[in-house]
Amino acid sequence: MKEFFDCLKCKECGRTYPKEAFHVCEFDFGPLEATYNYHKIKKYISRHLIESGPHSMWRYEPFLPLEGSPTVGLHTGMTPLIHAQRLAKALGVKDLYLKNDTVNIPSLSFKDRVVSVALSRAKELDFHVVSCASTGNLANSLAAHAASSGLKSYVLIPADLELAKVIGSLVYNTKVIGIRGPYDKVNRLCSEIAGKYRWAFVNVNFRPYYAEGSKTMGFEILEQLGWKIPDHTVICMASGSLLTKIDKAYREAIICGLVEEKPYAIHGAQALGCNPITAAFKKGTDLIRPVAHPNTIAKSLAIGTPADGYYAIQTIRRTGGFSEDVDDHEIIEGIKILAETEGVFAETAGGVTVGCAKKLIEKGHIPSTSQVVLCITGNGLKTADVLKDHLQPIEVIDPTIQDFDKIIDFEN
Amino acid sequence: MKEFFDCLKCKECGRTYPKEAFHVCEFDFGPLEATYNYHKIKKYISRHLIESGPHSMWRYEPFLPLEGSPTVGLHTGMTPLIHAQRLAKALGVKDLYLKNDTVNIPSLSFKDRVVSVALSRAKELDFHVVSCASTGNLANSLAAHAASSGLKSYVLIPADLELAKVIGSLVYNTKVIGIRGPYDKVNRLCSEIAGKYRWAFVNVNFRPYYAEGSKTMGFEILEQLGWKIPDHTVICMASGSLLTKIDKAYREAIICGLVEEKPYAIHGAQALGCNPITAAFKKGTDLIRPVAHPNTIAKSLAIGTPADGYYAIQTIRRTGGFSEDVDDHEIIEGIKILAETEGVFAETAGGVTVGCAKKLIEKGHIPSTSQVVLCITGNGLKTADVLKDHLQPIEVIDPTIQDFDKIIDFEN
Ligand SMILES: Cc1ncc(COP(=O)(O)O)c(C=O)c1O
Ligand SMILES: Cc1ncc(COP(=O)(O)O)c(C=O)c1O
Ligand SMILES: [Zn+2]
Ligand SMILES: [Zn+2]
Repeated sequence: MKEFFDCLKCKECGRTYPKEAFHVCEFDFGPLEATYNYHKIKKYISRHLIESGPHSMWRYEPFLPLEGSPTVGLHTGMTPLIHAQRLAKALGVKDLYLKNDTVNIPSLSFKDRVVSVALSRAKELDFHVVSCASTGNLANSLAAHAASSGLKSYVLIPADLELAKVIGSLVYNTKVIGIRGPYDKVNRLCSEIAGKYRWAFVNVNFRPYYAEGSKTMGFEILEQLGWKIPDHTVICMASGSLLTKIDKAYREAIICGLVEEKPYAIHGAQALGCNPITAAFKKGTDLIRPVAHPNTIAKSLAIGTPADGYYAIQTIRRTGGFSEDVDDHEIIEGIKILAETEGVFAETAGGVTVGCAKKLIEKGHIPSTSQVVLCITGNGLKTADVLKDHLQPIEVIDPTIQDFDKIIDFEN
Repeated sequence: MKEFFDCLKCKECGRTYPKEAFHVCEFDFGPLEATYNYHKIKKYISRHLIESGPHSMWRYEPFLPLEGSPTVGLHTGMTPLIHAQRLAKALGVKDLYLKNDTVNIPSLSFKDRVVSVALSRAKELDFHVVSCASTGNLANSLAAHAASSGLKSYVLIPADLELAKVIGSLVYNTKVIGIRGPYDKVNRLCSEIAGKYRWAFVNVNFRPYYAEGSKTMGFEILEQLGWKIPDHTVICMASGSLLTKIDKAYREAIICGLVEEKPYAIHGAQALGCNPITAAFKKGTDLIRPVAHPNTIAKSLAIGTPADGYYAIQTIRRTGGFSEDVDDHEIIEGIKILAETEGVFAETAGGVTVGCAKKLIEKGHIPSTSQVVLCITGNGLKTADVLKDHLQPIEVIDPTIQDFDKIIDFEN
């Protein structure tokens, strides 16, 4: 879609850069972002055109930073938007929806969206090795997408990640490198490596391409709501990128005439054990104090120095949203209430989103009469271990009706 | 779709039964099966009508045994059919496809299809408690679907199942009952319970409804191939039901004019450690010798007395297919080659399908020039533990470029 994708542009000074593997401005180190010719997109696009596109995120191709057609992740996206009436009742809000990326294709998290874009672009720019710094889900997605497209891949993760996430990368025959220390050290090392080897690090030198993929989660929400912006959207944050990109999708949809402009609030959600963005928001400052030693079961969100934290706070403030946090106990309760009411099994990050939404509703920051979307970003099988001691035990009996009757009698 | 769904009918003597919670013939104990008025369906249906239906298994509603509209599992089905060119090369076959139910909604296996039908029907017949005997995936699916539709549920499983499958049921707040002994004991107990309590056991007294759900996997394959029957379809077997129902879908599609009639072969796949169907097939007999003590990592397929084993063998023979089996080592190799080439992470059952397909191709039972579909029925995160000692180890280093360089030097 080269006619729509213009260039990369510094978010700080507005200087423009060619569409290559650049990610920071040479003058002020501001992050680069993809920009488009919205005038042209508006002329080209329509609700009908999108609805008759492929049943995947690629129906939003005009808003994505590629020059040709996508080549990686053709099945990704268009996950269900669930009208969550049972959870709505439990949380005390009228009209609640879940954007369910726990069943995203191929690797069961929203990261499949960003990797699809980054690797499609990496192929366009003729990179042969792909890599990332990851808290787990990104590694799974990169490994899966690289395998199916025949790219060599390396993933770098904190060495203490959940076993399911490690196996869920290794199985694709990617090279998994565990780094002693928290995510921020992993990320810093990746920046160094990207300076030395000609590799496409999806969230370092390819970050401007990668990050745009998250917009598709926002576009799909709008379409699946019948082309309407929800009053409230609750999004969990690690680097803060997803949150800013869902907002970008909403704004682009307004600009291009896909939805009507209206007030909407974007809310952020973090784990108390790694809450740099929420802490800054609550203090009323833009200055994010790094969390040197994250300590939470929500390992996928454990980024102490969030690259887009500043922009996330701006977005939350501009839209009249709030930023919340929840402790480990509340995360588990969030996972359980979501599963029990809606049959959706989310990972710890989903527990963070549900737990924070609950608080925001209780505090009145999300009025009970409003329309709310929760972004559920990853699958519960990846972090199942955290539930081990928090579920009712399994009852073990001999295969006789007498033993069975005893259980039923006891229950009733 | 009451106009299309006729009645239940004994597969042995043809006696008909009303559309209720019956599953065996009173005269000969033959299994009952749903029958339809194909004449009416043929007049009503068209490729175009199906293609403009919902993006879910329910586009095939006319072929499903409900009286009203479905109420459970509205997002289930329409999983991707992947053109697996890299795996095709590895296995030495020209045109290979994967029907990828590892990403089925909500619980990541093909069982979501059967449960959607069974619970929709249970609601129509006013049952308030739902239950099943399960080797794991069915339990996950029943628990998830029951949660989202507000039904009380009990799942009965062999007590030694994978932890991920146990947690993946418990999280939905279903009552999980572990039975000491293999699946067959679980199943027998469930028959007794179904005789005593007015519960909808999806795979016992609701089996005629439940089993029809599997047809949608077959219909979708035809549609996604551009309305063509593949030369060869490889399907893993536990009770053997899925295999017989994919064949039924192919035949119904021919009868109703959706595809052209042509020769096709249906192949069965089992684990060597529980291979009652394959053993009988290889012996050339219809008589299935129960496997009293299944011993395989493919626990989801560990059914020693397969309810539909006889019919599965008939289907395989009639279509000119074969039945194969693979040992635990081959299962793991199957999982790995699938992940490495196509980025699809399947559970042990998927390893069985890939492993058996490999053998069938090597032996020439599937000619290298043919078009082949492999049914990949469940997600790898549910049985990730079996891979623990079979993947290259993760390399752990300090966050320095020097340590990193050493790894790369060593690699190259
Ligand atoms: C499941 C899940 N949800 C949300 C996020 C947050 O992403 P972002 O870094 O864009 O804030 C992550 C990041 O790893 C994640 O894995
Ligand atoms: C993942 C998976 N694949 C295949 C099957 C086989 O199903 P059937 O009993 O219909 O043969 C099962 C049954 O539990 C299963 O869990
Ligand atoms: Zn700048
Ligand atoms: Zn009969």
